[in-house]
Amino acid sequence: MRTDVDTDTDQVSLAVSTVIFALRPHPTTGRTTLWLPLVRRIREPYEGRWALPGGPLRPDEDLAASARHTLERTTGLAPRHLEQLYSFGAVDRSPEDRVVSIVYWALVRPDEDARATDGENVEWFVADDVRGLAFDHDTILRYALARLRAKITYSPIAFAFVTPEFTLADLRAVHEAVLDRSLDPANFRRQVLASGTVTATGSYLTGTSHRPPALYRRAALPEEIR
Amino acid sequence: MRTDVDTDTDQVSLAVSTVIFALRPHPTTGRTTLWLPLVRRIREPYEGRWALPGGPLRPDEDLAASARHTLERTTGLAPRHLEQLYSFGAVDRSPEDRVVSIVYWALVRPDEDARATDGENVEWFVADDVRGLAFDHDTILRYALARLRAKITYSPIAFAFVTPEFTLADLRAVHEAVLDRSLDPANFRRQVLASGTVTATGSYLTGTSHRPPALYRRAALPEEIR
Repeated sequence: MRTDVDTDTDQVSLAVSTVIFALRPHPTTGRTTLWLPLVRRIREPYEGRWALPGGPLRPDEDLAASARHTLERTTGLAPRHLEQLYSFGAVDRSPEDRVVSIVYWALVRPDEDARATDGENVEWFVADDVRGLAFDHDTILRYALARLRAKITYSPIAFAFVTPEFTLADLRAVHEAVLDRSLDPANFRRQVLASGTVTATGSYLTGTSHRPPALYRRAALPEEIR
Repeated sequence: MRTDVDTDTDQVSLAVSTVIFALRPHPTTGRTTLWLPLVRRIREPYEGRWALPGGPLRPDEDLAASARHTLERTTGLAPRHLEQLYSFGAVDRSPEDRVVSIVYWALVRPDEDARATDGENVEWFVADDVRGLAFDHDTILRYALARLRAKITYSPIAFAFVTPEFTLADLRAVHEAVLDRSLDPANFRRQVLASGTVTATGSYLTGTSHRPPALYRRAALPEEIR
């Protein structure tokens, strides 16, 4: 019986890749939608194609540290929400060698996103419009989108996309952007208030209308669902 | 900007490890509880210590295939429920070299478990009693137990531990074993029936009492929460 670390082969390489989601206005509709930064490859294989930012795992680097470094290089950001998503290791995912990618995802808050600075060969794209990425990165992106859309229905992940104080309209915009459909404001408000996941701060959004919307913050939960 | 597979170092090794949970009677209380098989290490580091079954990823092997092979070698089983759990890559998790372990978990149904055959140097243990494993395997096991205990509250994962047709008492025993506490039978019954996750088969468990319990199967759900 073998166990974990009795490795006798070094023919498999390990990379850490990142899916970085932020909410920005759609270029034509103006509606808040999911974007992500991609990196243009400057060498073969897949030269000229777009790819998820990432790189080989350095021997002295933890997995999350590797993802944080990629994030910093790609976007200049250090978003609070960074977690491991999944590892992709199909034998044929890279044409020339065997590479397993451990994928992290980052969810960027609007106040964090305001400080984003694009790295070299980096551009942001509307996530649902992206096709033709290098390697199996289309598959990875579809997986990340599906996970995000499932998780927002049963976990507090939506809060990763709002500032610490937010209006219910802010929170609804996150759900609408992630689910890619409109939600009835009155129903959404009723459901969120009934869920016990938010607490009114007692303050209101100033400088807006004659009926300024109330500000909320995330309620402390007994236990997080991850 | 680097992307995914521009690997220029092979100093990190990759292993696939497995956490294999089955429900068996507790050796002293007789209550159904979580067990897992471990492998005794026959060489350094950690010679003589117990470890999660696993091994280096072969270049021609997909991740799940590697986990399936380990499962087969360790238990003789091919359980239906096998999924990727998490990847562990702390720099110091192995004393001599840098090894990242991608961990899969298998949940074994009672009818599958009945066919288990222990591999060489393999023994089964009560999961919550296990301490002092090799490497960071204590951490991995704690993580798996925490995930299982969280997931059973919001996902259909409990069905991985019952046969296709089951009584509500069978399903309750799974929840009690995973959560490690007793549940009120009437409350449990009411909650499960209200959840819409089970359907009565119209059949009854034969050869038991004068009031044989009804058999259920899992209801088809519109969308799985994973």
